[in-house]
Amino acid sequence: MDRRTFISAAGIAAVGAASACSQGSDGTSERVAAPAVNRGRTRRLRMVTTWPPGFPGLGTAAVRTAELITQMSGGSLEVEVYGAGEIVGAFEVFDAVSNGVADMYHAADYYWQGRSPAFNFYCAVPMGMTPYEIMAWVEYGGGQELWNELSNPFNIQPFQAGNTGHQMGGWFKREINTLEDFRGLRMRIPGLGGNVIRELGGAAVALSGGEIYQSLQSGAIDATEWVGPWNDLAFGFYREAPYYYGPGFHEPGSALALGINLGVWESLASDHQAIVRGACHAANNQSLAEFNHQNGLALRTLTEDHGVQLRSFSDDIWLEVGRICEQVVADSANADAISRRVYDSYLQSRRLVRDWANVSEAPYYRQRDRILGR
Amino acid sequence: MDRRTFISAAGIAAVGAASACSQGSDGTSERVAAPAVNRGRTRRLRMVTTWPPGFPGLGTAAVRTAELITQMSGGSLEVEVYGAGEIVGAFEVFDAVSNGVADMYHAADYYWQGRSPAFNFYCAVPMGMTPYEIMAWVEYGGGQELWNELSNPFNIQPFQAGNTGHQMGGWFKREINTLEDFRGLRMRIPGLGGNVIRELGGAAVALSGGEIYQSLQSGAIDATEWVGPWNDLAFGFYREAPYYYGPGFHEPGSALALGINLGVWESLASDHQAIVRGACHAANNQSLAEFNHQNGLALRTLTEDHGVQLRSFSDDIWLEVGRICEQVVADSANADAISRRVYDSYLQSRRLVRDWANVSEAPYYRQRDRILGR
Repeated sequence: MDRRTFISAAGIAAVGAASACSQGSDGTSERVAAPAVNRGRTRRLRMVTTWPPGFPGLGTAAVRTAELITQMSGGSLEVEVYGAGEIVGAFEVFDAVSNGVADMYHAADYYWQGRSPAFNFYCAVPMGMTPYEIMAWVEYGGGQELWNELSNPFNIQPFQAGNTGHQMGGWFKREINTLEDFRGLRMRIPGLGGNVIRELGGAAVALSGGEIYQSLQSGAIDATEWVGPWNDLAFGFYREAPYYYGPGFHEPGSALALGINLGVWESLASDHQAIVRGACHAANNQSLAEFNHQNGLALRTLTEDHGVQLRSFSDDIWLEVGRICEQVVADSANADAISRRVYDSYLQSRRLVRDWANVSEAPYYRQRDRILGR
Repeated sequence: MDRRTFISAAGIAAVGAASACSQGSDGTSERVAAPAVNRGRTRRLRMVTTWPPGFPGLGTAAVRTAELITQMSGGSLEVEVYGAGEIVGAFEVFDAVSNGVADMYHAADYYWQGRSPAFNFYCAVPMGMTPYEIMAWVEYGGGQELWNELSNPFNIQPFQAGNTGHQMGGWFKREINTLEDFRGLRMRIPGLGGNVIRELGGAAVALSGGEIYQSLQSGAIDATEWVGPWNDLAFGFYREAPYYYGPGFHEPGSALALGINLGVWESLASDHQAIVRGACHAANNQSLAEFNHQNGLALRTLTEDHGVQLRSFSDDIWLEVGRICEQVVADSANADAISRRVYDSYLQSRRLVRDWANVSEAPYYRQRDRILGR
């Protein structure tokens, strides 16, 4: 995924609605913290997203979060979801919520890395944590507190509300057998992963989702990453780039975020706050489950119906790519004080959960596969 | 864990309260399905659990689920948690909810394997799914529908509401280097895992949690499994059995369940149903995160402060143990028709998510560890 992927022509079309968004539907202000039950009237909240409406796994996670809030509140909170471009453009959702144009966004927080590289850690960084690990850091390892510190000055209260699961390494026209094969490779890959490709001597190209297929077909690019089997299947990349490399090094489990306007958040009664946070946690759980199941189904379709060739990078490639990843991420933390603190916290937590994975899931996967066979 | 672990002397002490549990606090029946918002009065629901109150990760998951329901409903549902033995004994909670003595239970569903082996699959089976995988099966792979079919005849509506993460292989007084070392081994290990130890020529011993330490000390047993580092640390097993084997083969991610009385469930208004289900999903998410973080911390304490020796079973041992596991689980599915259908569904889903894990998380764990070192 990248910033340009979902950019739409639509601008900020609803600035005039800003004040209404933080008021009850009867027009009275609800910005005074309400400690008790707050029912009996409907408060409409507008969610803007970086996803097209209904986009598999991403748009659906946004809709799921919104529906849960609406259902669990018995309609006393009614969340209306707007896809990218419907109220504001895909990458204007952060500002829209910050400014009160909308009440909440559903997005991937690494889109805001221009404001601070610290935002990368709340979605995915190269050689970073898996979905199961980033949850541990954010919820119990001090990650949420630093995220609040990062986002609150922008007038935003963030929560985890979805995860794509592990992302694939991408689609390649030719096999990648040695580090030399990256030299001159023109690959569509955004963000910190793109920095890694550049360090390897390739060219990291920025293309929106809609431009990728044609660029592969014309030979303008030699390779592309996107998300995982579920999302990749729909684009038909396999027809132009038959070698599908996995796993990817660049996004080992991209967290999705709900950011709610801080004033709106503080105005919610305690039960409504519990519902918003609970809906995010529940949506995260369902997103993990859904991506895992759907990626399994799509992988089968790709390999069995479309003859896709699965490949993995060699051990030598991984060692060098991994070294570069660590450097790229460390460098990114030099930008500002909060990035440094988030980086330090993230690394401490990664060490903790990695040591545990090393005696639990990691060897279990290996042994189970030896036993059950391919 | 096993059935006897938490058995308490308390019997069914509150049968007389049965009818009140399925009624509103004003005494009127709420068993008619209520489609609309149902607020403004408090309905008390009693949750009975198989855990001691506050037991790390298990008791806390029960309390978290209960508190979420109470908070999100603004107190219109008020869930009171009773630890094992407070209203009914640990392993009487299923019957208590089935009969309406209590409104919901929080437990591990493999405790009900005596009713049908199919219940094992909704907690953990040897060589089975990881937490991230069982979520995919239950939520999106057809598992929930079969679970309803299994539990509804007992008057219970089940949901996933927690997961211990991967469990360890156990504590051993002597190293296990070959399959021969299992012969004559007296190990405390319950359920289907115990069947596997018996097939290997060992003796599977049933002991409650409180009996294990003394049995290790006296030499009555040579080894024991319990849960994972977080729960194992508290018992101090390392003082008597210094070799800590991981990962375990027997419980690769044990799901915890909330079972709600079917009549109570059907009597809930749609928003209250959304809250109960949403609270279970949110609690599952938080449980995964908490166990991952806490197991990491406890593993560090065990190895760095207590000098615990981490060991893993050899590849040869895994191959034979795995073969036996597959047979033991397949045999268990012969008991009844629903077990067969659940087994078939589980195996189909395991294949799907395993194929995906094989090109994503499994190799990623391996490569990341090579790069970052020990």
